[in-house]
Amino acid sequence: MRSIEVKNRTSVDDIKGLRLITALKTPYLPDGRFDLEAYDALMHLQIMNGAEGVIVGGTTGEGHLMSWDEHIMLIGHTVNCFGSSIKVIGNTGSNSTREAIHATEQGFAVGMHAALHINPYYGKTSLQGMISHFETVLSMGPTIIYNVPSRTGQDIPTSVVYQISENPNLAGVKECMGNDRIKEYVDGGIVIWSGNDDECHDARWGYGATGVISVTSNLVPGLMHELMFHGMNPSLNSKVMPLVKWLFCEPNPIGLNTALAQLGVVRPVFRLPYVPLPVAKRVEFVGIVKAIGREHFVGDKDVEVLDDDDFVLVGRY
Amino acid sequence: MRSIEVKNRTSVDDIKGLRLITALKTPYLPDGRFDLEAYDALMHLQIMNGAEGVIVGGTTGEGHLMSWDEHIMLIGHTVNCFGSSIKVIGNTGSNSTREAIHATEQGFAVGMHAALHINPYYGKTSLQGMISHFETVLSMGPTIIYNVPSRTGQDIPTSVVYQISENPNLAGVKECMGNDRIKEYVDGGIVIWSGNDDECHDARWGYGATGVISVTSNLVPGLMHELMFHGMNPSLNSKVMPLVKWLFCEPNPIGLNTALAQLGVVRPVFRLPYVPLPVAKRVEFVGIVKAIGREHFVGDKDVEVLDDDDFVLVGRY
Amino acid sequence: MRSIEVKNRTSVDDIKGLRLITALKTPYLPDGRFDLEAYDALMHLQIMNGAEGVIVGGTTGEGHLMSWDEHIMLIGHTVNCFGSSIKVIGNTGSNSTREAIHATEQGFAVGMHAALHINPYYGKTSLQGMISHFETVLSMGPTIIYNVPSRTGQDIPTSVVYQISENPNLAGVKECMGNDRIKEYVDGGIVIWSGNDDECHDARWGYGATGVISVTSNLVPGLMHELMFHGMNPSLNSKVMPLVKWLFCEPNPIGLNTALAQLGVVRPVFRLPYVPLPVAKRVEFVGIVKAIGREHFVGDKDVEVLDDDDFVLVGRY
Amino acid sequence: MRSIEVKNRTSVDDIKGLRLITALKTPYLPDGRFDLEAYDALMHLQIMNGAEGVIVGGTTGEGHLMSWDEHIMLIGHTVNCFGSSIKVIGNTGSNSTREAIHATEQGFAVGMHAALHINPYYGKTSLQGMISHFETVLSMGPTIIYNVPSRTGQDIPTSVVYQISENPNLAGVKECMGNDRIKEYVDGGIVIWSGNDDECHDARWGYGATGVISVTSNLVPGLMHELMFHGMNPSLNSKVMPLVKWLFCEPNPIGLNTALAQLGVVRPVFRLPYVPLPVAKRVEFVGIVKAIGREHFVGDKDVEVLDDDDFVLVGRY
Repeated sequence: MRSIEVKNRTSVDDIKGLRLITALKTPYLPDGRFDLEAYDALMHLQIMNGAEGVIVGGTTGEGHLMSWDEHIMLIGHTVNCFGSSIKVIGNTGSNSTREAIHATEQGFAVGMHAALHINPYYGKTSLQGMISHFETVLSMGPTIIYNVPSRTGQDIPTSVVYQISENPNLAGVKECMGNDRIKEYVDGGIVIWSGNDDECHDARWGYGATGVISVTSNLVPGLMHELMFHGMNPSLNSKVMPLVKWLFCEPNPIGLNTALAQLGVVRPVFRLPYVPLPVAKRVEFVGIVKAIGREHFVGDKDVEVLDDDDFVLVGRY
Repeated sequence: MRSIEVKNRTSVDDIKGLRLITALKTPYLPDGRFDLEAYDALMHLQIMNGAEGVIVGGTTGEGHLMSWDEHIMLIGHTVNCFGSSIKVIGNTGSNSTREAIHATEQGFAVGMHAALHINPYYGKTSLQGMISHFETVLSMGPTIIYNVPSRTGQDIPTSVVYQISENPNLAGVKECMGNDRIKEYVDGGIVIWSGNDDECHDARWGYGATGVISVTSNLVPGLMHELMFHGMNPSLNSKVMPLVKWLFCEPNPIGLNTALAQLGVVRPVFRLPYVPLPVAKRVEFVGIVKAIGREHFVGDKDVEVLDDDDFVLVGRY
Repeated sequence: MRSIEVKNRTSVDDIKGLRLITALKTPYLPDGRFDLEAYDALMHLQIMNGAEGVIVGGTTGEGHLMSWDEHIMLIGHTVNCFGSSIKVIGNTGSNSTREAIHATEQGFAVGMHAALHINPYYGKTSLQGMISHFETVLSMGPTIIYNVPSRTGQDIPTSVVYQISENPNLAGVKECMGNDRIKEYVDGGIVIWSGNDDECHDARWGYGATGVISVTSNLVPGLMHELMFHGMNPSLNSKVMPLVKWLFCEPNPIGLNTALAQLGVVRPVFRLPYVPLPVAKRVEFVGIVKAIGREHFVGDKDVEVLDDDDFVLVGRY
Repeated sequence: MRSIEVKNRTSVDDIKGLRLITALKTPYLPDGRFDLEAYDALMHLQIMNGAEGVIVGGTTGEGHLMSWDEHIMLIGHTVNCFGSSIKVIGNTGSNSTREAIHATEQGFAVGMHAALHINPYYGKTSLQGMISHFETVLSMGPTIIYNVPSRTGQDIPTSVVYQISENPNLAGVKECMGNDRIKEYVDGGIVIWSGNDDECHDARWGYGATGVISVTSNLVPGLMHELMFHGMNPSLNSKVMPLVKWLFCEPNPIGLNTALAQLGVVRPVFRLPYVPLPVAKRVEFVGIVKAIGREHFVGDKDVEVLDDDDFVLVGRY
C-alpha cells in the first residue's frame, strides 16, 4: 500500500537531525472531540518558537485515548496544514501488532514523515517477539523506537535495538532509561533523543544525544529550543527545572493538561482517566510561571488558578 | 472541530466553477487493500489530462465497500499529494446521519475541498428528514448534493434543494434525473453537474450545466475534457457514446473496473460484490478501444482480453 | 469460525415454519444509545402475543443506523434473554460483501438462529455479483433473502433465488414484489414471507405464503397473529388496513416510531435521518387506535398526541 | 442501557464465592480469526474439570490483540453456549475510560456475569483519576478489579480499593502483589483471588484468598481444582510448580500458547507480537508433561515437540 508520492518526501536523515521535537498536547472541545482551532494555535506556537518536529498522539497527546480513525485524521490534518514547516511524527505504535501495522500504513499514506513505535506494553512479549513486532513496521518508513519501561513494564534492551538497526529506516531511539544508556547507544552509532526533560540538557551536551522529545516544550518552546541549540547552559537548565518537576508530579500529561488550561491556550477539558491537578498544585504553577517569566510561556492571557468547577471531565465522547 | 487553517483554503466559488470532475476508481492489491501506487498513477493521469476535480470514494470509487478509516485515509492521502493540483471532493455521505456527520467532519479536517452528500438511500426518510439530514452537514464546508434515484430509491425533489440552498455552503447538485431537471435548476440559479455521461454533452451546452461528474473520464480524460471545455462537439460525443453504453451495461463500476484492468493501469482485483464483465464484453471493449483510438485512453500498455483466471475476487480484506 | 455448539441449535426447518415474524423497533435513550429496558419490554409483548420470530436490526429496527458492534451486541442480547422463546433472526446483510461476511459470522457466533440478507443496495451489482455475494454468506447458517426493490433500486429476480436455493441453508425469501411473485415462488417450492403488511393476509391464505415479516405487528401483535394463524379473516384484515396505510404514509419506520412513542412504550427519541410524523398525522393515529381498540395495541398507557417539543432528534450518538 | 433481564441473572455474591476461575486461552485459525470449535472444546474441558468461572479476553486470552467487536462477540458466544454452566467474566477493562465504558456496557448487555477491570496501564493516571476511572464502570454490574503492576507500570494501592469498595458491585480483587497484600485485604473484608499461580495454594489456605484466577488451569484444570477445593496439599503444589515455572519463563501467554499447541488442543497459530518458545523449551515441556502425567493435562493426543515450521505467526488478521 505504499505511495511513492509520499515516500519520496522524507528521508531517514531528515529525521535523524531533529533537535527539538515536541510531544504535542491534544486539546478538546467540551464534548470531548478534538478542538482543532486550539490545536492549530499550539502548532503555530511550536513552529514560531523553533520546534523542528512534533509527535502526534503520543502518550502526551493521549493517543491511547483516541480511536484510530481520530488518530489518523489528526496526523493527516497536521501534515496537510503544517507539514511543510515541521516534521510530523505519528505515534502509530501499539501493543497489538495488527493495530501497529494498520495505523502505520495509514499514517504514512496520509503523509507523516516518521512513525514512533513502542514495544508491546501491558501484554508484553519475549525479545524475539519484540523484534518481530518492530520488523513488521520498520519497512514502512522512517521510524523512531520509544523505550519507557515505567509505562510499558518492559525495557527494550540494547541488543534488540542493535538488531533492528540493520534496517535503514531506523532513525533512532527515544530513550528514557537515563544518560548512561544514551551514551552507550551514541557510542554504538545510534541516534538518540532523550525522553526525560529533566535530563535532556545533560544528554544533549554531555552524552551525545541529538536532542529531546519534550513535554515541557509545549509550555516553554523557546527555552527548550535555547537548551537544545545553543550549547551548554546550566543556569537556564536550572531555571526550568522547577517547572519540569512540577509537570511530572503526577503521570504525564496530567500536569501539562492542567498547565495549558491555566495559561488559557486550551479549554479545561479532560478525557478520563485524566483529571486535573488539585488546587494547591494549580496555585504552585502560577508561582512557577511568575518565577520563570510569563513571556516565556505559550499564550498571552494571564495565568489563572482555575476552580474545580471550571474543568470538564468526559468519559463518553 | 473546525480548523481555520483548513477552512481558509477553499471557497464555495472554487467548487462552483469546476467543469470536469472525475469519480475516481479505487485500485486494489491482490489482498484487497488499496493499491496506492496505482491510485497515484491514476491521479497523475487525471491531472495531466485536465480534470479539475476528483470524487474520492464515490460509488464509482466504491466508497460503500470501504471502512470509514480507509475512506478518510484516502481523502487525506489525495489532499496531501495532489491537493494543490486538483480539487478533492470526498464522498462523505451516508444513509446514516451519524456517519455522514463523523465522516464529513474528518474529511474536512484532513483538508478535502468539498463534500459530496447523498440522500439517505435504502433506509430512506421523509422530505423533512432529508432536509434535516443535509442540514447537519452543510455547515461544515462546501457541499455538492447527489441525486441518483436509481440507486437510492428516492428522488431528491427540487423543493428540498431550494430549501437547503439558503445555506451558502451549497455548491450545487450532481443530478442524474435528466436534462429537463437540470434546466429547471439552472433557471433557478443552482449550479449543476450532470451525473450521466451519456447526457453530459447536451447538459453542458444545451441545458446550462456547469460540467460533469464523470465515470468515463477515468478512461478517456482528454476526450471528456474536450467535451466539457471547448464548445459543442456532437461528432466527438457520438464517437464516445459506444464506450459510455458499454461502461453502463451493468451497474457501475463493473464496466470501469473491467476496462481499467484490461488497459493494464490497475490490477485485475475486485472487491465483492463486484465481479468482472464476462469475456464477450471484454472482447467488445478491445474493439471499442481500437475504434476510438488507444492513444485517447489512459495507460500505455496494449489493451488485453483478460482470462477469467486473471481476476482476483476478494470478500475478506 | 463455526461453533458446533451454536450450529446444533437451529435447523433450517425451524425457520421455514415461522408464520409471524416481527421486524422489531429499536428504542433509544435520549442520548441515542439503545434503551434495553424498553427493548426487553417490546420483546415480551411480542412473545406474549404469539410472534414466533423477530428480526433484529432490520430496516424497521434501523440496522443501517447502528454501528456493527451495536448491532451484534443487540443480536447477542436478544438471543441471550429471549432465544429460548422466540427465533432470533439477525439482519446481518450489507451492500458490502465484507461487512455481510463479518457480521453474519459474528451473528451466528452469538447464537442467532438465522440471518436476513439483502442484495447489494445502492452500490448494486450484476446478477452474477449478486449470486457471489449471497454465496459467501449462505454457508454460515439458515438464511432468509430479502427482496425490496423500492429500497435497493434492484430487483432480485427469481432466477437468482432458484440458483442459490441449491444451498440447503436457504430458508426462504421475504418478498415485497407482490402476491403474483409470491405465488410463482410457492409453486416452485420456495418458502415465502410477505414483506408487505397490506398484502399479507391474501399472501398467506390465497397465494401460499408461509407468513409475514411484519412492521404492523410491533403495534398490534395479537391481531397480526390472528391474521396469520387462524384462517381467512377479511373483516379483521379490513379493520387493520387503516392502521397499515397510516404506518406507511412516509418511509418506514417513521410511522412506527411515531406510533410507539404515542403509545408510551418507547421514549420519543429519533435517530436522524428519521423525524416524527407531523402533528396532523399524530392526531390521526389517535383516531385509528380508538377505532381499532386501544386494547389491541401494545402498552397500557393512554395514547397521546405528543407535541413537537416532546421529541428528541439525535445526530451524534 | 441496562437490561433488567440481564441484571437479574447474577448477583455479586455469585461472583464472590468462585474458587477456580480460568483465564482462558483464545485459539485461532490459520488466518488469525477465532477458532470457535477449539474454543468450545477448551470450555468443555474447563467445565468438566471443575472450573467455576472463566475470564474471556484477559491478558491470557489476548484481549489486547482483539478488536472490541471480536471481544464482545466472544463474550456473547460464551454466555450463550456455556453461561448456565460457568460464570463468564469479560475483561472489558481498558486504559481508555471511554473504551472501558463502551465495552462494559456491551459485555453486560450480552449477558456476562461480571467484568474484570484493570487500572489505566501505559497511559497511567493519578490516584484520583484511577478512582474516577473505576467509578464510571462499577455501576454497571459485578466487578473484579485487577492489580498487576508488572504489566501496568502502576500499583493500585489498597486505599483506592477501599474507596471504591463502597460500591456494592465490587466483587473483589485479582491481586498479583503477593500474599502479604492479600492478607491485608482479607483482613479488611475484601474478597481476593490470587493472580499468581505459584503463590495461589498458599494464598488460598494460608492468607485467606477465596481462590485463584489461573493460567495454569488451562492445562491442568483438575489439579488446580484439587488445589483450590480440597484443603492444603503442599505435595501436589510442589508437583505442579515446575510446570508453573516453565509457563512463566517468558511473558504469559507465550508459554501457554506453546503448551496448548504441543498438547494438540489448539492449532499452532500465534497472533503477533507473540511467538512460540524456542525448541529447547518445547522439549522441556514434554518432560514436564511426562513427570506430572499426561492424563492430568487437557486433550488426549500425545504431547509433541513441534517444529519451528509448524507454527503460523499472523500480523494482519
